[in-house]
Amino acid sequence: MAQDMTLLWGSGSPPCWRVMIALEEKNLQGYNQKLLSFEKMEHKSQEVLDINPRGQLPSFKHGDIIVNESYAACFYLESQFKSQGNQLIPDSPEEQARMYQRMFEGLSFYEKLNAVIYYNWFIPEDERHDSALQRNREALVTELKLWEGYLQKLGSGSHLAGPTFSLADVVVFPTVATLFRFGLSAETYPKLGEYHALLKERPSIKASWPPHWLENPKGQDTLNDI
Amino acid sequence: MAQDMTLLWGSGSPPCWRVMIALEEKNLQGYNQKLLSFEKMEHKSQEVLDINPRGQLPSFKHGDIIVNESYAACFYLESQFKSQGNQLIPDSPEEQARMYQRMFEGLSFYEKLNAVIYYNWFIPEDERHDSALQRNREALVTELKLWEGYLQKLGSGSHLAGPTFSLADVVVFPTVATLFRFGLSAETYPKLGEYHALLKERPSIKASWPPHWLENPKGQDTLNDI
Repeated sequence: MAQDMTLLWGSGSPPCWRVMIALEEKNLQGYNQKLLSFEKMEHKSQEVLDINPRGQLPSFKHGDIIVNESYAACFYLESQFKSQGNQLIPDSPEEQARMYQRMFEGLSFYEKLNAVIYYNWFIPEDERHDSALQRNREALVTELKLWEGYLQKLGSGSHLAGPTFSLADVVVFPTVATLFRFGLSAETYPKLGEYHALLKERPSIKASWPPHWLENPKGQDTLNDI
Repeated sequence: MAQDMTLLWGSGSPPCWRVMIALEEKNLQGYNQKLLSFEKMEHKSQEVLDINPRGQLPSFKHGDIIVNESYAACFYLESQFKSQGNQLIPDSPEEQARMYQRMFEGLSFYEKLNAVIYYNWFIPEDERHDSALQRNREALVTELKLWEGYLQKLGSGSHLAGPTFSLADVVVFPTVATLFRFGLSAETYPKLGEYHALLKERPSIKASWPPHWLENPKGQDTLNDI
């Protein structure tokens, strides 16, 4: 039981979800947690700022140790609980290299997704340009094709770094799930569709599925023509 | 000697510099390397694309293993050459947590720097807005104050994760050096100034200092009023 840990999080936030998957994988259930609302701006509340001066979620504490950045928290948990739960960094140099590589390419993937689905949220109205949104959509398509290619090359039933689930899946799966939540077509992107279908049944991922997605299973159609 | 390694890089690129510092710290000198020009678009050449489908520098190979993302390459090198050269991940949980946390905050730091100094490079002319650039400048100032605070708290002569040099310094120092290259005032940001002065004498950093900065020691003044 992880009673010396506290997680402040928001539903549907890929960075928060990463940390929750890592906690499940390391058998760290029973941590203190509080679901906050981005819409109500609760991520800027004093409760969050006390842990995280950036006013962002996730905010995560283990005893007196604070690790708020989602990738940092995942690395930290794997390092501190190496022999507990599932091993998340593979032993073989090839798989390990691929894991690191995909994790950091995953940041571009996430950024390119956000630049399309949250364009109006990030860019003030009088600074928006159809040409910019169009460019962002094209960059996302290019990115999607790269990941289709990576999965194609590894073969059916594979994870992102190879045969076993790793930190690459912990950090990138929430991006993939968000793509499908926002209408991505599994017919146009069959390998990503297969990967999504495989991983959404994994216990750590089922246990941490965004509650507002469960309440309202129908997502958006922002990406259905991409 | 690291004759089974190849690095394609560009001068003054913080991501390339990170990998070069990590290689020096792990005593991996003598690798094959080629300095390419961003201005001549050599990062989009076939030679790069053969290693890196994103057409970006650094592009890095160790035998048949490809790890192009700079953070990925740094993690990979530390993991594969753990007992060679300097240990770059501290043992204590507190320092390790701080190292991970600062590494990933370092990505925001780098992004906020780029959003100011390369605004005109990234944004097509008819999509530029003074309001956006002004907002980016304010975001950079907020970010700079955070890092001043972190260094202030750790005390003089400290590195980013604590008393010893770590991966956090490997990945964040090139951002700090770029800030000063673009005119940041060490009077306005004294802790960052002190950190910069301390680390620029470190052998791994001196050995990998951007050659075009050496040739032309005078930088830009983009940030001198920030």
